[in-house]
Amino acid sequence: MKIHNFSAGPSILPQEVLKKASEAVVELNGIGLSLLEISHRSKHFVDVMENARALALELLGLEGKGYKALFLQGGASTQFMMVALNLLEKRAGYLNTGTWSENAIAEAKIYDDIYEVASSKDAGYNYIPKGYTIPDNYDYFHCTSNNTIFGTQIKQFPNSPIPMVCDMSSDIFSRQLDFSKFDLIYAGAQKNMGPAGTTLVVVKEDILGKVSRKIPSIMDYKVQIAKSSMFNTPPVFAVYTSMLTLEWLKNLGGIKAIEKVNEMKARVLYSEVDLNPLFKGYAVKEDRSYMNATFNLVNDDLKDTFETMLKEAGISGLNGHRSVGGYRASMYNALPLDSVKALVEVMSELETKA
Amino acid sequence: MKIHNFSAGPSILPQEVLKKASEAVVELNGIGLSLLEISHRSKHFVDVMENARALALELLGLEGKGYKALFLQGGASTQFMMVALNLLEKRAGYLNTGTWSENAIAEAKIYDDIYEVASSKDAGYNYIPKGYTIPDNYDYFHCTSNNTIFGTQIKQFPNSPIPMVCDMSSDIFSRQLDFSKFDLIYAGAQKNMGPAGTTLVVVKEDILGKVSRKIPSIMDYKVQIAKSSMFNTPPVFAVYTSMLTLEWLKNLGGIKAIEKVNEMKARVLYSEVDLNPLFKGYAVKEDRSYMNATFNLVNDDLKDTFETMLKEAGISGLNGHRSVGGYRASMYNALPLDSVKALVEVMSELETKA
Repeated sequence: MKIHNFSAGPSILPQEVLKKASEAVVELNGIGLSLLEISHRSKHFVDVMENARALALELLGLEGKGYKALFLQGGASTQFMMVALNLLEKRAGYLNTGTWSENAIAEAKIYDDIYEVASSKDAGYNYIPKGYTIPDNYDYFHCTSNNTIFGTQIKQFPNSPIPMVCDMSSDIFSRQLDFSKFDLIYAGAQKNMGPAGTTLVVVKEDILGKVSRKIPSIMDYKVQIAKSSMFNTPPVFAVYTSMLTLEWLKNLGGIKAIEKVNEMKARVLYSEVDLNPLFKGYAVKEDRSYMNATFNLVNDDLKDTFETMLKEAGISGLNGHRSVGGYRASMYNALPLDSVKALVEVMSELETKA
Repeated sequence: MKIHNFSAGPSILPQEVLKKASEAVVELNGIGLSLLEISHRSKHFVDVMENARALALELLGLEGKGYKALFLQGGASTQFMMVALNLLEKRAGYLNTGTWSENAIAEAKIYDDIYEVASSKDAGYNYIPKGYTIPDNYDYFHCTSNNTIFGTQIKQFPNSPIPMVCDMSSDIFSRQLDFSKFDLIYAGAQKNMGPAGTTLVVVKEDILGKVSRKIPSIMDYKVQIAKSSMFNTPPVFAVYTSMLTLEWLKNLGGIKAIEKVNEMKARVLYSEVDLNPLFKGYAVKEDRSYMNATFNLVNDDLKDTFETMLKEAGISGLNGHRSVGGYRASMYNALPLDSVKALVEVMSELETKA
C-alpha cells in the first residue's frame, strides 16, 4: 500500500532524492568509495558543499547580493543561541507567534535583553499579530515565518528598520518572497530540504562583526564563512541529500513552480475543512499556513472511526502536536497533491458515514 | 580495483554497515517509509536512538555505573565549548598534545582560566608528556587520547584527582581501557563509529550541575540527558549508521576482539617503517598511535615514484595532514589487515626499486 506521509518533520522527501542518496551511501559517482568514507576536504565533497551553497542562494534569488549560505549542524535550536551570540549587543525585538518563537526568545535572553514586539499567545497562537512597531534602535528583529505546531504563517512581512532575522525552518523554498528583505534566514533541513542533521543559514555579511563579546569559533558566522562552511567536518550525508533536493527543486522550475503546487494542495485541504461540518480549522483563515494545516473534529466521538479510516487509506503522520492535539496535515514541497486528495476523500467519506 | 581507504576521517566503515544504511534510506525495516522521512518521536526511531545509546555504554563497559550516552550534533569542536560551559567554573587543567588539544584549550579559554598541565609542543608534538601533576583544586582535567595529526596516543592515563574529560574522537572503541576512569568522554562519529554528523558523549551524571552560569539549553548536558538525547531533532541518519557500526562491533566480539586486529595492523605497519631504510616514523616509538601512523620518506626524491606506486595499488588517503606533511596511514576499526599488507608491500617494493 502506498503511504501518504503527512509527517511534520523529519518529513517526506522526493523519491528520486532518496534513491540517489541511497546509492551514494554505497558508492559516490563511481569513485569506488562511499560518500561517508571520503575526506570532506577531497574535491568530491568540496564540490558537493559548494554546489549546495550556490543552489540555496540561486533558488532564493540572493546571488551577488552580499549573502553567504552555510550548512551548519545543530538544528534551528542551535541558531536560537547563535543568532544572539553574533548579533545581540544590547536589545533585540522578537515577534512571538508560537512555541518556536518562545524558545528563540528564551535562549536569546541568556545573552541580553529581549523585547516582544507583539504576541499571539492570548489566543493560543491561532493568528499572526499585525500592526506592531519595530523599534529602530534595537540590534535586530526576529520572527518565525511559519508555525508548524499551530498552523499559522506570516503572509506579509514588516519593513524592518533594523536587520531582520527569520526562522524559516518549516516553509523555506515553498513560496516566493523578496528574500532580500531578510538579513539572516535559518532553517533546519528536515522539512523542505533534506534529512535532519544540517541547518541552512543565509546571512548578509555586512551585519556581522558588530558585537563586542568573544564568540566561540564554531558559533561564529564569520569563522564559518571564512572556512566555506567547513570549519570542522560537516554532516556530509545531510549536506549531500540537501543538495539533491535543491537540484530537484531547480529542475522542477524552482520556488515559483512549487509554490503553485503548494497553493493547490492548501486550497484542496482547507476547502474540505471549511465545507465539511465535521471539522473545524484551528488557525484564523487569513493566517493559515500552506505547509501545516491544523484542524479538529467538531465531535470527538468520531475520533476512532476517523483514525481507523485514515489508517486504512495509508495516511500517516496526521496527529497534531502533543501540545495542541487534533490533526495536522503537513504538506511540504515533496508531498504530492494526490496525498492531499486521498486525505480529503477520507474526510468527506466520514461525513457520509456520520 | 579494490580501494584501500586510509582516510583520516571521514573514514572507512564496514561494508555491511554501508549496505544496511543505504537500504534504510530507501525503506526502514519494511515500514514503507525511508528512515529520513519518519518522525524522530516515532517508535521506529526512538528504538534506534535507545539502542545506539545502550550499545555505546555496553561496549565501553559502563552500564549501571552512573553514565549516560548522548548522540549530539556539532562534532568534537562543539564539545570544546560545551565541556567548558558545563564544567568550567574557575580553572581547568589541559594536557596539550597537538592541534586538537590546542583548539580545545582556545575555546575553553573564552569561558574561564585554563592551565596547561604539560605540553609536547616543544618537539612538534611527536611525544606524549608524562610525569606531570594534575592540581586537585581545579574543576577538571582534559586530555586528547589520540592525536590524529601527529600520530601519537596516550598509552597510560593518569589517575586524576579531579574529573577527567577525554576527547577520544579518533580512537574510541579501538582498544580496551578502564573507561570508568573518565568522567566525560566525547568523540566525533567519523572515525570508528559512523558518518560525520553526530558526536557521542558519555558523561557521568554526578559531575553535572555544578557551575553557576546559565547554559543555553542545547548546550546543557543535563537538558540533553533529560530529553533522552532528543532535545531537538537528532541527526537521524548519522545516529542510525552509528548504531549499525556498534552492532557490527558487538557481533565481532566487542572492543577486546577489534583491539587484537588493531594491534596486528599497527605491528605490521610500524615494523615496515622501522625496518625499511627509506622511511622514518614521526612519533617517538613508545607513544605511537595504533590508529594513525605518521611517517616520512627519508629521501624526498622518491616522492613521485612512491605516490605513483600507491595509486597503482589502489591505496587512497595516505597524505599527511597539511600542517605536518609526509604520510599518515589511518587504520581505524573497519580497515582490514589486508589493506595494511597492501601498503607494506608497496613500501617494501619501493626499497627494492630504490
